[in-house]
Amino acid sequence: MKDLFADRMSKVPRSFVREILKVTEDSDIISFGGGLPNPKSFPHKEIAEVASEVLKYESSEALQYSTTEGYKPLREYIAQRYLKNGLKVDADEILITNGSQQGLDLVGKVFLNRDDGVIVERPTYLAAIQAFGMYEPKFHSVKLMDDGPDTPALEKLLKNGDSKIFYCVPNFQNPSGISYSEEKRKEVAGIIQENNAVLVEDNPYGEIRFMGRNLPPIKKFLPDSVLLGSFSKIVAPGIRLGWVVAGEEVMDKLVTAKQASDLHSNYLAQRMVHRFLTEYDVEKHLNKIRSMYRMQRDVMVNSIEEYFPEGVTCTKPEGGMFLWVTLPEGVSSMELFDLAIKENVAFVPGEAFYADDPEINTMRLNFSNSDEKSIVEGIKRLSNALEKIL
Amino acid sequence: MKDLFADRMSKVPRSFVREILKVTEDSDIISFGGGLPNPKSFPHKEIAEVASEVLKYESSEALQYSTTEGYKPLREYIAQRYLKNGLKVDADEILITNGSQQGLDLVGKVFLNRDDGVIVERPTYLAAIQAFGMYEPKFHSVKLMDDGPDTPALEKLLKNGDSKIFYCVPNFQNPSGISYSEEKRKEVAGIIQENNAVLVEDNPYGEIRFMGRNLPPIKKFLPDSVLLGSFSKIVAPGIRLGWVVAGEEVMDKLVTAKQASDLHSNYLAQRMVHRFLTEYDVEKHLNKIRSMYRMQRDVMVNSIEEYFPEGVTCTKPEGGMFLWVTLPEGVSSMELFDLAIKENVAFVPGEAFYADDPEINTMRLNFSNSDEKSIVEGIKRLSNALEKIL
Repeated sequence: MKDLFADRMSKVPRSFVREILKVTEDSDIISFGGGLPNPKSFPHKEIAEVASEVLKYESSEALQYSTTEGYKPLREYIAQRYLKNGLKVDADEILITNGSQQGLDLVGKVFLNRDDGVIVERPTYLAAIQAFGMYEPKFHSVKLMDDGPDTPALEKLLKNGDSKIFYCVPNFQNPSGISYSEEKRKEVAGIIQENNAVLVEDNPYGEIRFMGRNLPPIKKFLPDSVLLGSFSKIVAPGIRLGWVVAGEEVMDKLVTAKQASDLHSNYLAQRMVHRFLTEYDVEKHLNKIRSMYRMQRDVMVNSIEEYFPEGVTCTKPEGGMFLWVTLPEGVSSMELFDLAIKENVAFVPGEAFYADDPEINTMRLNFSNSDEKSIVEGIKRLSNALEKIL
Repeated sequence: MKDLFADRMSKVPRSFVREILKVTEDSDIISFGGGLPNPKSFPHKEIAEVASEVLKYESSEALQYSTTEGYKPLREYIAQRYLKNGLKVDADEILITNGSQQGLDLVGKVFLNRDDGVIVERPTYLAAIQAFGMYEPKFHSVKLMDDGPDTPALEKLLKNGDSKIFYCVPNFQNPSGISYSEEKRKEVAGIIQENNAVLVEDNPYGEIRFMGRNLPPIKKFLPDSVLLGSFSKIVAPGIRLGWVVAGEEVMDKLVTAKQASDLHSNYLAQRMVHRFLTEYDVEKHLNKIRSMYRMQRDVMVNSIEEYFPEGVTCTKPEGGMFLWVTLPEGVSSMELFDLAIKENVAFVPGEAFYADDPEINTMRLNFSNSDEKSIVEGIKRLSNALEKIL
């Protein structure tokens, strides 16, 4: 059978994070490895109530086949909510997907021929490499500074190269926690505009800003771009709902690709989420998540400052679920991982997050899925491992 | 933006059925066009109960990210159920997908390079052409006889050609309603085995057999093949759950492809369906659907015999949701469609179901989604249109 597999399958590895998570299933291990939201943040009672309502009042519709685009009132809600970020989009410019992960797959389907260029950030979201990788592109990358990408490098890549797509996560990026400044957002928009490329702006964490001021999506400065959103972090990931925003011409292709991929997303879940968003106090719910994650982030940052040896730095994100640690030059976080597992603490070595040329002295820590006590204890354990390797 | 689209997007048309369904939204039209199950067949009360139970007892798990493979107890249930068809598979050989449509997409991802050959039936399931079409294969087709495919033609195509995949729907095929005889199943298995190809056996309707005896899946005679299943017709399609069965080596690739596509399927729905299947009398539920569809099929077949003009023939399926009508040579069902719409009745012209060289004098009629009165009235209206065109 092996000789029958498509070429693409030899190029895409299984997720390293996934393999790590298997190691960390042992309950004695404190894991900063995964990317899970805190289950305490899920609106359990409300979800049970909306499920009951949908199945009482709209069962025949919710259980039947539906349109590929998704439940119109949900798309209208999403469009409406963007107004607070200064973004005007129509419900018809929104397609409901299975998390924003499927948005990445559909973008790959719609735009990428084999060997087309895709520019990603350094570091970048691992699962984007996997999703786009299925369409056999050439990856290029631009370094992420404290306030966004190295824009001269981005411009140079677009001018000299074969690149169709720039993929970025401008708010509390996974894995680095870095956000783009407003200036960088405008600059990126200008560069993409000039070079006839597609901006793919992924924003799963935007609503989870717990400090600083909201910044507009890059799409506000570049209407002709693709923007991805997700309910995984603001409602719950198990229901697998996200969305893509794109103009008419691109949307037409995305809908064709979605139809071929799985006809449409879970319709019961779409109606449930719509009821939740319209019948409950969403801001109150989001504030609960924000203050929970802010507390956890503060505990982690403070513990790092207290316990980590000198020469180890970390980002201090204003939102999201991750922070990014840089070890002294030449120290391998992969080797640290083995020592850390012996201390019963886990994280993801940074090299998983590079499309090329990994920086081996980096690592990602998740703070959303551990309670405060575990965070302090886990950082202590990690410090022990760090002291051994330094 | 247009110049940036991938080549594949120019090759895959939007679904014709979808466009037709828009025409038939007018409530005066009796539609035999769609492929919808009867919403009366959904286990409404039971689904509401299992949703409530899952969200009461397993909410934190059901709403959280999960493994790509899917909920293990559900996969175990599926494996167990295959035993009654003489098929022994392990739960680890099953991947939960978003309907069997996603199974087709994942198979395309895993096996198809551009220009690889895919053999389909004549006629074939429209959405399979769309799903595989995204990977830019060359389509070939083999004629479907009353008892299955033209096997000498299948063998010839595999021997002379570039074909990796034979895709088939051996039970109550969509669109034709035709089922493979046991002999043909064995013969197909042998031909595939000899020619180092992949059999992709799609079985969304197998449980909806309302007459005749159950036949084993082809996979029974060819363990090293891919088998697709779906909960859309036996539970409900809106929850978008299906599965793929494949051996370890192929499964490993399918899981990688699924992970890149959307991480995993809706986990709440997986747990709900598992509770439904294990806590309720599934045979009773299936028998209700079977007798409902048998009645509707009988009414349609009898009405056709009573009202259709001579020279028009139709298949008489032993299960599923569709029958296939053949008009006299040279008569176009596309032209008939326009006349039928004027009579307020709709169907899908057969030419949508051919990967190449359509037979324009064919059409698909759905009997699952109309009540008996509408079926009689719709067939009368269709007869009027037929008399005008003949």
